[in-house]
Amino acid sequence: MSNRKTDTEQIRAANRAEVISALRVYGPVARVDIGRITGLSPATVTAITSELAEHNIIQEVQAPRESSGRGRPRVMIDLNPDKASVLGLKLSINELRLMLGDLKGNIISEAVVAVRTLDQDAESLNAVLLKEAEHFLAQHPGHQQLLVSAGIAIQGFVDAHQGNVVWSPALSVKHINLTNHLQRHLGCPVELANDANCIAYAVQMQQQYVECRDFIVVMLGYGVGGSLIMNGELYTGHLGAAAEFGHTKYSHDGPQCACGKRGCIEAYVSDYALYRDASAIMNLPATDRRHPSEKQMQKLTELARTGNEAARELFAQSGRVLGYGIANMLALMSPERVVVTGPGVRAYDLLEDGVREGIRNALVNELSSGTAIEHLPWSEDMTGKGIIALALKHFG
Amino acid sequence: MSNRKTDTEQIRAANRAEVISALRVYGPVARVDIGRITGLSPATVTAITSELAEHNIIQEVQAPRESSGRGRPRVMIDLNPDKASVLGLKLSINELRLMLGDLKGNIISEAVVAVRTLDQDAESLNAVLLKEAEHFLAQHPGHQQLLVSAGIAIQGFVDAHQGNVVWSPALSVKHINLTNHLQRHLGCPVELANDANCIAYAVQMQQQYVECRDFIVVMLGYGVGGSLIMNGELYTGHLGAAAEFGHTKYSHDGPQCACGKRGCIEAYVSDYALYRDASAIMNLPATDRRHPSEKQMQKLTELARTGNEAARELFAQSGRVLGYGIANMLALMSPERVVVTGPGVRAYDLLEDGVREGIRNALVNELSSGTAIEHLPWSEDMTGKGIIALALKHFG
Repeated sequence: MSNRKTDTEQIRAANRAEVISALRVYGPVARVDIGRITGLSPATVTAITSELAEHNIIQEVQAPRESSGRGRPRVMIDLNPDKASVLGLKLSINELRLMLGDLKGNIISEAVVAVRTLDQDAESLNAVLLKEAEHFLAQHPGHQQLLVSAGIAIQGFVDAHQGNVVWSPALSVKHINLTNHLQRHLGCPVELANDANCIAYAVQMQQQYVECRDFIVVMLGYGVGGSLIMNGELYTGHLGAAAEFGHTKYSHDGPQCACGKRGCIEAYVSDYALYRDASAIMNLPATDRRHPSEKQMQKLTELARTGNEAARELFAQSGRVLGYGIANMLALMSPERVVVTGPGVRAYDLLEDGVREGIRNALVNELSSGTAIEHLPWSEDMTGKGIIALALKHFG
Repeated sequence: MSNRKTDTEQIRAANRAEVISALRVYGPVARVDIGRITGLSPATVTAITSELAEHNIIQEVQAPRESSGRGRPRVMIDLNPDKASVLGLKLSINELRLMLGDLKGNIISEAVVAVRTLDQDAESLNAVLLKEAEHFLAQHPGHQQLLVSAGIAIQGFVDAHQGNVVWSPALSVKHINLTNHLQRHLGCPVELANDANCIAYAVQMQQQYVECRDFIVVMLGYGVGGSLIMNGELYTGHLGAAAEFGHTKYSHDGPQCACGKRGCIEAYVSDYALYRDASAIMNLPATDRRHPSEKQMQKLTELARTGNEAARELFAQSGRVLGYGIANMLALMSPERVVVTGPGVRAYDLLEDGVREGIRNALVNELSSGTAIEHLPWSEDMTGKGIIALALKHFG
């Protein structure tokens, strides 16, 4: 029994948010298409778009002429990107990335600042975040007034409901709140999300996934993350920490994981795990083993691709473990698709056969054959676009 | 972007369903309490209860006098149990259980029929189900006219959306539809659900769980099943088969599971697995190893309880494997509670330490400490009450 009240104003707000969201994904579109996309009635669409046009939130744009070249150019509508700004912050080990997003969800400006994240306590970190946010916003005059919300992405266990980082490899302190201080001083809502969940927001904004109601995103990279989209919504669970796919298990006595336990999927499949295992059997340049660089990971990938059998088998085994982990999620959640992305998809060609073999060995065909296993090329922008998308839910 | 229309009639229907559902769980209640429970406004509650009273769906009942004995007895309202009937069918190996439910969700009559389930093909099984359903209903004159819906529970992989049994240990045939034929001849909607998901419906009807929005039910017994309640709703996934917890893995090269793969949680924790392992190390009466009887399982449990060390360690290890499997779900889904039930909780005292140890070994405290792990005493009625609850969603 949910404690919700359903009244007319709430419905209107939900419909308005749906139209804005449709325009963000599909815009520019003809007015008639909005009804088709959202399932709203023509009367409702007209009422909402009139209201949005009045407030300058949407604008008419000229569509390119149809290829036939005949007829008048069609009038399309789209969001007015300059109507609102959001601030995105991505916190990773010793680095803070600041991004400015527009109402369309595009990143229009970004900056990277070195921050000694591991040396901070809760107070100093919150102070740094605010100082850097204010400095960044000051460099973008005009946007400060348009700011509707902000979002923070961080790797690790996050209580998204409370805005708390429970544990993160980027921090030495545990259980700290990152949203209250910023919220108070910026004067707008601030969201906190695990980095993998940010990526899921970005994936959900893509036209080929926006209609998909039940899918799982797997993020491969420095760690291994996961996100669940269930009934069309990101699911973070009662405790806000879902889905820590990287810390589901392959073996009860496997290799050491960064979380402190043994045999987690991450301890086989993450960049640090791959580089650690490779270092044990071949001569590789020394690195901070927990954080091999992108260049080092590319080099290792290239070695495997060009015939180094040991490296090749390493990726194949990593793929099998990943497939085994995915099989558990298929059994539990019966999704339409699993989308693998993150920096680690650089080696997906080397993982893919293993992934399929791992699933096939672990799970009966009846439970695995209905789900498409896909991978999505990675771009550094994805997390940022996800934070922007998350923060933008406060507009509309 | 969901393709839904939100209009006034839909809201009214949703609110009406919410009131009926609240009465089913909490009734009899005072009228004012309905608002508190559902979060609906007093005006809405009055409108809905008047409409329901007019149609005889609810009735006034006399509450017991307050202990002070002063004042008039309070008038409470409750569902009129005799306003509608539903039919529940539970299909298991060589057995069909038929149940008649009332609008309150109570089982008012039941019958058990021997059916050679493993010898049936799709057509003959559908014919048997219809024949037995009609025969059962004919024995309950008056209820046939009141019949609003029916529900079928079966062990195995079920596509709940299509009404198909993908695979079941109770059947020799795969991929068969069980709802269309019955639906056509009974003239009412027929739901199909996996038995573990039925239990989740029954758990959700209990006052101590009805407010819980995110929990997982684990069913221990002849097999091992699972159900996910997410955002207050049972989640069956895109393919309708969620959540096959018993076929998530403990080991990639573990003991043989009934599904055909190796090392599934079920292959360590189910009745058949426990009895198989026990038979290998102690002298037990012969049994159909895939289906030790309840009596045999109770005997094995008693052996462990009264000091047989080998039996004791068997249950402890089973508990550890169960804990390991639960840990994967905690990492992925961050639930408020995990509720263990099913016939297998007969031995929960022998499993419990192992469950906690298994979780502790597999998962960092940050991801496990927020979830309560509970067990719920088992009653054979649970599946039946769940089918009735599922079927009743068509009323209201």
